[in-house]
Amino acid sequence: MKLWQKNTTTKAEVEQFTVGRDRELDVLLAEFDVLGSLAHTQMLASIGLLDSSDLTILQQELKNIYRDIKAGNFTIEEGVEDVHSQVELLLTKRLGDAGKKIHSGRSRNDQVLLDLKLYIRSEIQKTVESTQALFEQLIKLSEEHKDKLLPGYTHLQIAMPSSFGLWFGAYAESLTDDLLMLQAAYHISNKNPLGSAAGYGSSFPLNRQLTTDLLGFDSLNYNVVYAQMGRGKTERNVASALASLAATLGKMAMDICLYLNQNFSFLSLPDNLTTGSSIMPHKKNPDVFEIMRAKCNKLQALPNEIAFIITNLPSGYHRDLQLVKESFLPAFQELQGCLQMATFMLQNVIVKDNILDDEKYKYLFSVEVVNNEVLKGVPFREAYRNIGLAIEEGNFNPAREVHHTHEGSIGNLCNDQIQQAMAATIAGFNFEQVQLAIAKLVA
Amino acid sequence: MKLWQKNTTTKAEVEQFTVGRDRELDVLLAEFDVLGSLAHTQMLASIGLLDSSDLTILQQELKNIYRDIKAGNFTIEEGVEDVHSQVELLLTKRLGDAGKKIHSGRSRNDQVLLDLKLYIRSEIQKTVESTQALFEQLIKLSEEHKDKLLPGYTHLQIAMPSSFGLWFGAYAESLTDDLLMLQAAYHISNKNPLGSAAGYGSSFPLNRQLTTDLLGFDSLNYNVVYAQMGRGKTERNVASALASLAATLGKMAMDICLYLNQNFSFLSLPDNLTTGSSIMPHKKNPDVFEIMRAKCNKLQALPNEIAFIITNLPSGYHRDLQLVKESFLPAFQELQGCLQMATFMLQNVIVKDNILDDEKYKYLFSVEVVNNEVLKGVPFREAYRNIGLAIEEGNFNPAREVHHTHEGSIGNLCNDQIQQAMAATIAGFNFEQVQLAIAKLVA
Amino acid sequence: MKLWQKNTTTKAEVEQFTVGRDRELDVLLAEFDVLGSLAHTQMLASIGLLDSSDLTILQQELKNIYRDIKAGNFTIEEGVEDVHSQVELLLTKRLGDAGKKIHSGRSRNDQVLLDLKLYIRSEIQKTVESTQALFEQLIKLSEEHKDKLLPGYTHLQIAMPSSFGLWFGAYAESLTDDLLMLQAAYHISNKNPLGSAAGYGSSFPLNRQLTTDLLGFDSLNYNVVYAQMGRGKTERNVASALASLAATLGKMAMDICLYLNQNFSFLSLPDNLTTGSSIMPHKKNPDVFEIMRAKCNKLQALPNEIAFIITNLPSGYHRDLQLVKESFLPAFQELQGCLQMATFMLQNVIVKDNILDDEKYKYLFSVEVVNNEVLKGVPFREAYRNIGLAIEEGNFNPAREVHHTHEGSIGNLCNDQIQQAMAATIAGFNFEQVQLAIAKLVA
Amino acid sequence: MKLWQKNTTTKAEVEQFTVGRDRELDVLLAEFDVLGSLAHTQMLASIGLLDSSDLTILQQELKNIYRDIKAGNFTIEEGVEDVHSQVELLLTKRLGDAGKKIHSGRSRNDQVLLDLKLYIRSEIQKTVESTQALFEQLIKLSEEHKDKLLPGYTHLQIAMPSSFGLWFGAYAESLTDDLLMLQAAYHISNKNPLGSAAGYGSSFPLNRQLTTDLLGFDSLNYNVVYAQMGRGKTERNVASALASLAATLGKMAMDICLYLNQNFSFLSLPDNLTTGSSIMPHKKNPDVFEIMRAKCNKLQALPNEIAFIITNLPSGYHRDLQLVKESFLPAFQELQGCLQMATFMLQNVIVKDNILDDEKYKYLFSVEVVNNEVLKGVPFREAYRNIGLAIEEGNFNPAREVHHTHEGSIGNLCNDQIQQAMAATIAGFNFEQVQLAIAKLVA
Repeated sequence: MKLWQKNTTTKAEVEQFTVGRDRELDVLLAEFDVLGSLAHTQMLASIGLLDSSDLTILQQELKNIYRDIKAGNFTIEEGVEDVHSQVELLLTKRLGDAGKKIHSGRSRNDQVLLDLKLYIRSEIQKTVESTQALFEQLIKLSEEHKDKLLPGYTHLQIAMPSSFGLWFGAYAESLTDDLLMLQAAYHISNKNPLGSAAGYGSSFPLNRQLTTDLLGFDSLNYNVVYAQMGRGKTERNVASALASLAATLGKMAMDICLYLNQNFSFLSLPDNLTTGSSIMPHKKNPDVFEIMRAKCNKLQALPNEIAFIITNLPSGYHRDLQLVKESFLPAFQELQGCLQMATFMLQNVIVKDNILDDEKYKYLFSVEVVNNEVLKGVPFREAYRNIGLAIEEGNFNPAREVHHTHEGSIGNLCNDQIQQAMAATIAGFNFEQVQLAIAKLVA
Repeated sequence: MKLWQKNTTTKAEVEQFTVGRDRELDVLLAEFDVLGSLAHTQMLASIGLLDSSDLTILQQELKNIYRDIKAGNFTIEEGVEDVHSQVELLLTKRLGDAGKKIHSGRSRNDQVLLDLKLYIRSEIQKTVESTQALFEQLIKLSEEHKDKLLPGYTHLQIAMPSSFGLWFGAYAESLTDDLLMLQAAYHISNKNPLGSAAGYGSSFPLNRQLTTDLLGFDSLNYNVVYAQMGRGKTERNVASALASLAATLGKMAMDICLYLNQNFSFLSLPDNLTTGSSIMPHKKNPDVFEIMRAKCNKLQALPNEIAFIITNLPSGYHRDLQLVKESFLPAFQELQGCLQMATFMLQNVIVKDNILDDEKYKYLFSVEVVNNEVLKGVPFREAYRNIGLAIEEGNFNPAREVHHTHEGSIGNLCNDQIQQAMAATIAGFNFEQVQLAIAKLVA
Repeated sequence: MKLWQKNTTTKAEVEQFTVGRDRELDVLLAEFDVLGSLAHTQMLASIGLLDSSDLTILQQELKNIYRDIKAGNFTIEEGVEDVHSQVELLLTKRLGDAGKKIHSGRSRNDQVLLDLKLYIRSEIQKTVESTQALFEQLIKLSEEHKDKLLPGYTHLQIAMPSSFGLWFGAYAESLTDDLLMLQAAYHISNKNPLGSAAGYGSSFPLNRQLTTDLLGFDSLNYNVVYAQMGRGKTERNVASALASLAATLGKMAMDICLYLNQNFSFLSLPDNLTTGSSIMPHKKNPDVFEIMRAKCNKLQALPNEIAFIITNLPSGYHRDLQLVKESFLPAFQELQGCLQMATFMLQNVIVKDNILDDEKYKYLFSVEVVNNEVLKGVPFREAYRNIGLAIEEGNFNPAREVHHTHEGSIGNLCNDQIQQAMAATIAGFNFEQVQLAIAKLVA
Repeated sequence: MKLWQKNTTTKAEVEQFTVGRDRELDVLLAEFDVLGSLAHTQMLASIGLLDSSDLTILQQELKNIYRDIKAGNFTIEEGVEDVHSQVELLLTKRLGDAGKKIHSGRSRNDQVLLDLKLYIRSEIQKTVESTQALFEQLIKLSEEHKDKLLPGYTHLQIAMPSSFGLWFGAYAESLTDDLLMLQAAYHISNKNPLGSAAGYGSSFPLNRQLTTDLLGFDSLNYNVVYAQMGRGKTERNVASALASLAATLGKMAMDICLYLNQNFSFLSLPDNLTTGSSIMPHKKNPDVFEIMRAKCNKLQALPNEIAFIITNLPSGYHRDLQLVKESFLPAFQELQGCLQMATFMLQNVIVKDNILDDEKYKYLFSVEVVNNEVLKGVPFREAYRNIGLAIEEGNFNPAREVHHTHEGSIGNLCNDQIQQAMAATIAGFNFEQVQLAIAKLVA
């Protein structure tokens, strides 16, 4: 069943090739398609394009379908082209002519745009929640292990003392910046495209502000040509923000794989969180962090993939845009899975004590010694040269103590301030506004 | 069931996260896993690590499994980690201790490397066959429509006369160069990694040349550390070659979408190969070519995605490599689908006649006129300036005739030479050698 | 001259290879390096690491150097490694020992981090200004040509009526969303990394809040390990935002190249803004928009390139990060150049009248006719079918009138609201705070 | 001076924006532009479009210019658009009317195509030579250190014994596969585009086979539309092959950075090949390998960048293609620099002895022990389980001996076979054919 069926029948080969994985992917959009129809029908009634009795039964039936979707009882039937057609089919089957009226003033183009934006909003919220859980676990570990020193490396060479407090805290703070990008992407997404129809608007006197309010959007994509142009662009910007989060997580996974390596041995994992080898009986491998790193690096390639699909397409809808869904829709669940797994693993990771006792780490303290000279009045460049010569001559035996006091240093992690920044960022998403609107719509 | 199970049990969460889509994807590798075991067991017997009675029953049972796979009767059971475990499980269930012996001198690392290489070989052959079919359709159309002129554009501005002969033929010739890249990727893939075990070889006196011959490889990945390093690298090089083919096809799809546009109208499609709009009753959209373009552009992003997963990993196996399979394995079927669909659509495309009769195309002939002046002895730069001024003054009324005779021009397409080049390239793959070896192995 | 020179001399080959294009690129950072030193020395004095007489002469000399840089009188001398060394060299030459003291409590790592962030802030402001100019030109054209209709395409097929009002306005609105991404990247950048030293902080009692205030930053990168981790990450996020702007501009350039093509002919350019061909005397090519498109597409590849350099590097500084500068620093000028050129060209572009009079465009009005039926009470799906059949039978002769009234449609462009959104976004950058701080610092 | 100047003058802003860095980059193409003109003029004379006296003076003067270029005495003058214009300008200045005649039957489009292909051929040859030098250094080190054992890692966890023989040899063998991709790219490049003019051929009776022979090409890009379509495509395929080489080199640099790290300490560098820190007097940083890794990773992003510029451009020349030169032309020198620097550094690297004496490495030998059990008749899975339990119970004390004998293993590196493979690949480039042709052309 196709919404646009005419007298000729499209070849089966063409259908199969063009529909692709839509039936499978569109299930993710079903909930949001119904929300859109709930708002659209209210609006149609408000401008006299739907009478009140039709509105009543349509609202009731749409809410039924919504509940079915939420309960997992919704599939797109074989032979039905996409989620929009499936919902319209259900309505028409159950309500007859009234079902046929809901497509007035709307095209599949703005309908899928709307579904995508509602899906993005919802998935960004879940992503933020998973990020927040990981953030809190990292802060907890940072505080718990703030006195355990760690070698700090530059150029992968032993450099200066670091600490687990710093190391866990660094990834926590990184997440706060990642959420700033995600928030911008969220606000770009949280604008109403409904009413743009096929990208050129409608001759019906639609009330787009009404659907904007009903669906809890920040505002409208005003210009209808721009609303359509937002397809692909929105996904790319969201993907860029997801990639930023993924990069933080991937980098942490890389660090952990290195720290679990026997030459470093800064961390270890309980046996039951490792995997073995088919030929080496001694192996306890950190596969979780390797898979996490790989998934995150794959996510980093996503904005580029999306950009490839949309670049150099002239304005106006192209069917190419459909293919963006294939990699984009599942990206949220991939990332959320990684965030949740990271939180779980970090709840179980074992942090080693007294790492710096090893003789090879004494050079970490060379800057401390230089700075002590400076505090006694030696110009920095001279102190630096003196200690450098002492090291070359083998006369370097520093006290292994660290007294760092400034903001963000080993002795003053500023985790409170980082937590405040995180809280402020999350508040800026304003998720409540959306939730209130949706609750009202489906009540 | 895991090949490496020890006393502790891995957490379900860890298992689920790390196994990922392996059970689904590994089915694509099953046939090749069995081929590898057929060769490996012969080799083990040859060096005395398997006695002849075990060899006989193992070979027989492996051939049974091979036939089941070919008949579509093979799945990886719930709870079994991957294809290698599934095959070993079937053997052990049916043959007892003999089944346990086939993993000697082999690791899952070289086993999956081998499976991937055999899969790549097989899929490249199918890709070449689909390419060849499209190539022949393009040459056929080039010959059929060689006298139909077309405007040639530069800077998307009307430039000089072209023809459908040239246009179809250009895409045919492009495919010949794409296959050169694919052939290099094929020869990189067609080397035997078996025997590299976990990437550091084996203390068993393996005969790697024997498995090389049995499996029809060109030669070995000699160095075992390099054999392992080939994972990811091979896929990226193959993906680069697929991307080159995809770029040709994507560009052709872009041209066709433009030529089907009403402002150009150089081509048209039968109604039943177009799709409609949910709101515009007049629409006949060329969705097939848009989806094809998008799929090909997505494929162009694949080498980059693979490179992201593997870049900056130190040498030695990492579990990250598993994730390369997710996008890489299905890429072949995606591309073959596009190639086949392009062939089908081009069998049905309608080519317009007499396009250049339209007045706006007369400027296409300005170079012909300049060249005629040159042939009469006017220096080129002067002739160019004269005609330019005539055009600016509105005095340009050329004869609309084209007499191009040189190699590769409208009047001398050289399709024969292009076909010879294609035939030579395909011969260079030497697919027969592989097919003979495989036929012998499963006989 | 190298800040870290010891007893051994580094090989010339090593020096040349590692310094790369730093001398050339660092000139872009010189101004910001001096601003950082102005703030750092004030802070050092405040914690007693610099006496007041040294502070006075250092501030004075730094302001001299700042003025020289602003006047274009600054180069990095042959044999000097980078901008930091050059500034320190000038100070030491002119002030002797006092010059040697400014590096206390600082490493080149946090110094270059600081320079980059100040550079980014400054360049983002210029980018916003260029964007605003283009935005205003687009709004102006949208208003000026709001009554000129244009064919709207979907699938590159004639679809529904559009207008120049919509088309120009769409690109204006697109820029407002792009600036939301850029603003997030700006706020990520506008945090103070100074005091993180080599990525592990300092044993000096630095006052990082003081330098934060002096330099006009929003806040700090608190955690010193994170401050260092921000290198590369910041550039990638900024590049993603620049890529979003570039994508808008590149798409507009693609549209314009198509609209200038003789088969469309919706726009034209004055001759002196076109270029010619070396062999075709009639050519007037829109090279500016092609180069613009290419530059913008190249910019779209930038986040990916940066991500490649930094992905899978463990935490801590690596020299790899230096290479990010090569493509990143000039990207701002590239994009600003494109924005300015677009504004200039749009001031001169000629918009065609009465495009829709051409017979081939009558099908654009099919939805209008369907909707009129609906307004008379026919269910949408039936009206759609009726008009579709009329078209297939050749009985379709619509009135060519458009009455669109809803928000963002042809008759109600909402340019006012779009301008308000733009103004609100620009206000959110809070550029004044930075400018006040800098003015005070160099006064 | 522009070849296409008409009566109107192009705005200075337009000129500056469109010319871009052409004057700078085109110098790299100058030598090849002249070679092309030497062949083209011979061909013009052969078809009667140039008389023999003009041919004589043109050949002589072109050879003069060629010598000047080779001697470094060639620049593109201010106000001259590109290299083609500069050469034509010199000829016209010196020879008058004869100079004006060389552009007959040629456009700048096929001229730059030709220059690019000749440049690519020449630079690929240099790249192969640099690769070969590195290859030989690696083989030398592999042989020299073949008895020095190294821990082999999987999952970055201690796995099985490896050796420096294997490790150096692996990178050598990797280079042989990289050159297979490069060879395919070379053969795609080594086809003659001259005669395709602006992408649609010429009405002159050109003899394209003659220029093909004179310039030493393998064959022609026959179809003139395809010849033009090769622009961008050729560069992308070449860049993919360069990226493969860069990936090998980048991975080796990553390994080396890890092995130089104090926790590994498998390699060290002489002090004068390291750099220092501005604050840490003990630092000896391996910056060369970090910069090398970064440059190689940047090169890995190049095919993607090129693809972005060309994707979704319809067939026919677009000015966008010019921008490909900016990143593409210098990529060869970047990569050659890295290859040469790697060779130099490896001539000086210090390999550590007796690494495996450290207690933590004893588990490397677990597979040896398992295999010994197997050789005594214990089924593999049982032996594996037994040793695994011994390790868990702390009863594992293996002999630390390795007896690997199969092809490509520690005891049988097969470097001879790898060298033979390399020699065969290099022979396949057939560089001599090109050199003979060029020598004849400029004699």
